[in-house]
Amino acid sequence: MADDRVSITITAGIADVRMTRPDKRNALDGAMFVALAEAGARLCTESNVRAVVLSGEGASFCAGLDFETMAGLGGNERGHPGSMTDGRITHLGQQVAWVWQEVPVPVIAAVHGHAIGGGIQIALGADIRIVHPDTKMSVREVHWGIVPDMTGTFMLSQLVRADVAKDLVLTARIFDGREAHALGIATRLSDHPYDDAMAMAREIADRSPDAIRAAKALLNGLFHSGAAEQFAAERRQIGSLVGRPNQVEAVTANFEKRRPNFVDESQR
Amino acid sequence: MADDRVSITITAGIADVRMTRPDKRNALDGAMFVALAEAGARLCTESNVRAVVLSGEGASFCAGLDFETMAGLGGNERGHPGSMTDGRITHLGQQVAWVWQEVPVPVIAAVHGHAIGGGIQIALGADIRIVHPDTKMSVREVHWGIVPDMTGTFMLSQLVRADVAKDLVLTARIFDGREAHALGIATRLSDHPYDDAMAMAREIADRSPDAIRAAKALLNGLFHSGAAEQFAAERRQIGSLVGRPNQVEAVTANFEKRRPNFVDESQR
Amino acid sequence: MADDRVSITITAGIADVRMTRPDKRNALDGAMFVALAEAGARLCTESNVRAVVLSGEGASFCAGLDFETMAGLGGNERGHPGSMTDGRITHLGQQVAWVWQEVPVPVIAAVHGHAIGGGIQIALGADIRIVHPDTKMSVREVHWGIVPDMTGTFMLSQLVRADVAKDLVLTARIFDGREAHALGIATRLSDHPYDDAMAMAREIADRSPDAIRAAKALLNGLFHSGAAEQFAAERRQIGSLVGRPNQVEAVTANFEKRRPNFVDESQR
Repeated sequence: MADDRVSITITAGIADVRMTRPDKRNALDGAMFVALAEAGARLCTESNVRAVVLSGEGASFCAGLDFETMAGLGGNERGHPGSMTDGRITHLGQQVAWVWQEVPVPVIAAVHGHAIGGGIQIALGADIRIVHPDTKMSVREVHWGIVPDMTGTFMLSQLVRADVAKDLVLTARIFDGREAHALGIATRLSDHPYDDAMAMAREIADRSPDAIRAAKALLNGLFHSGAAEQFAAERRQIGSLVGRPNQVEAVTANFEKRRPNFVDESQR
Repeated sequence: MADDRVSITITAGIADVRMTRPDKRNALDGAMFVALAEAGARLCTESNVRAVVLSGEGASFCAGLDFETMAGLGGNERGHPGSMTDGRITHLGQQVAWVWQEVPVPVIAAVHGHAIGGGIQIALGADIRIVHPDTKMSVREVHWGIVPDMTGTFMLSQLVRADVAKDLVLTARIFDGREAHALGIATRLSDHPYDDAMAMAREIADRSPDAIRAAKALLNGLFHSGAAEQFAAERRQIGSLVGRPNQVEAVTANFEKRRPNFVDESQR
Repeated sequence: MADDRVSITITAGIADVRMTRPDKRNALDGAMFVALAEAGARLCTESNVRAVVLSGEGASFCAGLDFETMAGLGGNERGHPGSMTDGRITHLGQQVAWVWQEVPVPVIAAVHGHAIGGGIQIALGADIRIVHPDTKMSVREVHWGIVPDMTGTFMLSQLVRADVAKDLVLTARIFDGREAHALGIATRLSDHPYDDAMAMAREIADRSPDAIRAAKALLNGLFHSGAAEQFAAERRQIGSLVGRPNQVEAVTANFEKRRPNFVDESQR
């Protein structure tokens, strides 16, 4: 089943990786989590690959957690796979975003349609983001009574200022690709993000693969400082939120299309 | 007396905190330092508060150190309270800016008129800054022969590039809200910063308070790395400057409205 | 011979430092490396200097490594002096960029014409960059099968986002001063960068020299965290690239004006 979720085609040194669940806007269910992590793991070992393009088939890059998974968040269970994978600094939910940093060659995300919640966090895991100006994006987790816990807080901090990160996370507001570019979340805007991502991948594939791998490693060594600690903090915070009354109320009110009624600590 | 300096009104989960010394453009004297630190300390314990708006009554947010305090800098004494508060990483002068980071819910500064010296450092302590385009802002300390020592060097480094931080600190130049926005110091521009800050606070207060507190804690954990060390460095540097001949000359020449005559180390 | 490469003129507290090899666009050969490092070392001890302006005579700031030095990279030898200098965190190739951070007073680079490869890395070592809009700039190393190893990866990380740093390093593309300003690499644009740099230096020289030195030290203490580790990583990565088949092929193909033929690890 995970085989249906992601396709990999390698041509002339370029891996074309696609989320292939267009009928669900590539929403993240258990099979999609596994398929993305496996795709990344495979690309870590492909010595013939010089660049990767990551995109979504159909109308969107990735609309976030699957509806049914979200409904699960209204009950007392974890919304996405949370078990730690062996020897990693991530759990599976974090690994589907972080693995693109572990891939030793550049990963370019071509983003269009929607990149929401888990979807934007996966895009933030790529080295470069080429984004359609009309893309709808949001760090949406607070809307569901949770916090971004798929490496998004760490990757955001490399791209935007402290106040912008807080603005996006705290308001959970939806913004378009143009604003993403102005804020620093989109590397470039393009009306044809997939085509431009492939063109950039070809340009990189024409360079010395040794130098390209060394350059990514050298920059990552610098930018990844503190990642493991922050990922652990994400896991602690989400663990303290999921299933608590206010978090259940956030999800339940959303599904019942009513205004949520939250309680402050003093009233419990 | 400190009671005159800051007011707190809590309505529907929003704390409206105002500096209330409009006849002095909310300049910082000893009573204002104490009142700000106490206001922040109180908000750290108010479990019914979901968001804070920090603003200044009258024509300005805060024009910086009080004139008489500045005059004191021309003599051989510390310009603002420098004693460490128990168990903190700050002294009182730093605490009035840093306490807004310690408040567990989002703090939005509504900035207008002037935010100069200590005033801009307090604004930098907020999570979000909504700024009137005509606000006069400056990291003004070098003009007085000192350096920013109220957490400003650390908070600046989270918002602007290394060269921009140096430009602003080294030239002590005055810039307006529009440039502050272009540089990254203003989160948003608004012709009505107080109204827009209150609207944003209401939006945040409608979210799950657990998720909002967790999100601020999670992002602060990331962005605050190195804060204690830098605050100690600020205290060391200011301690080596205040009362030295060039610093006294900077203040004296300013008050005498003449060009200062500084000496280089080799001439002493 | 090194005496021909760099001139220093000190007037009214301002050191006017110029690369003086205009017939070669101030390209970096062994003598230029030594002359730049010595110029910086001298300015570390001049107690009468309050600000430094660093520029290049003739048509360009600095076009990068000297052609003959580059040709050397096609053989099995180091392209620029790599020996560690006593007690430093840099080797000589890094020191010519880093020394401007060690100089205790502000260093303003006036950049025009070309700032390529080693040239842009030297510009990044200055505190402030005033750049002509038509300047041709590039982090060019990957084009030669190597990586930036003259402190450029570290200094880039203080000015641009992680994705922008990767874009510039991985594509080795040439961009102009206008884009440099939009990206954060130029502090300011100017049609007369040297004149404007001198004006800024005069403004800084009118401030208390104690406060100016303290401010640079205070900000550097913050921004330099992690520098030594990253410089060591640069040295390791370049050591693993120079003289290897793909690196030699990059240089050889460039000089033979043909498309390079790189091999992936799996094919060796």
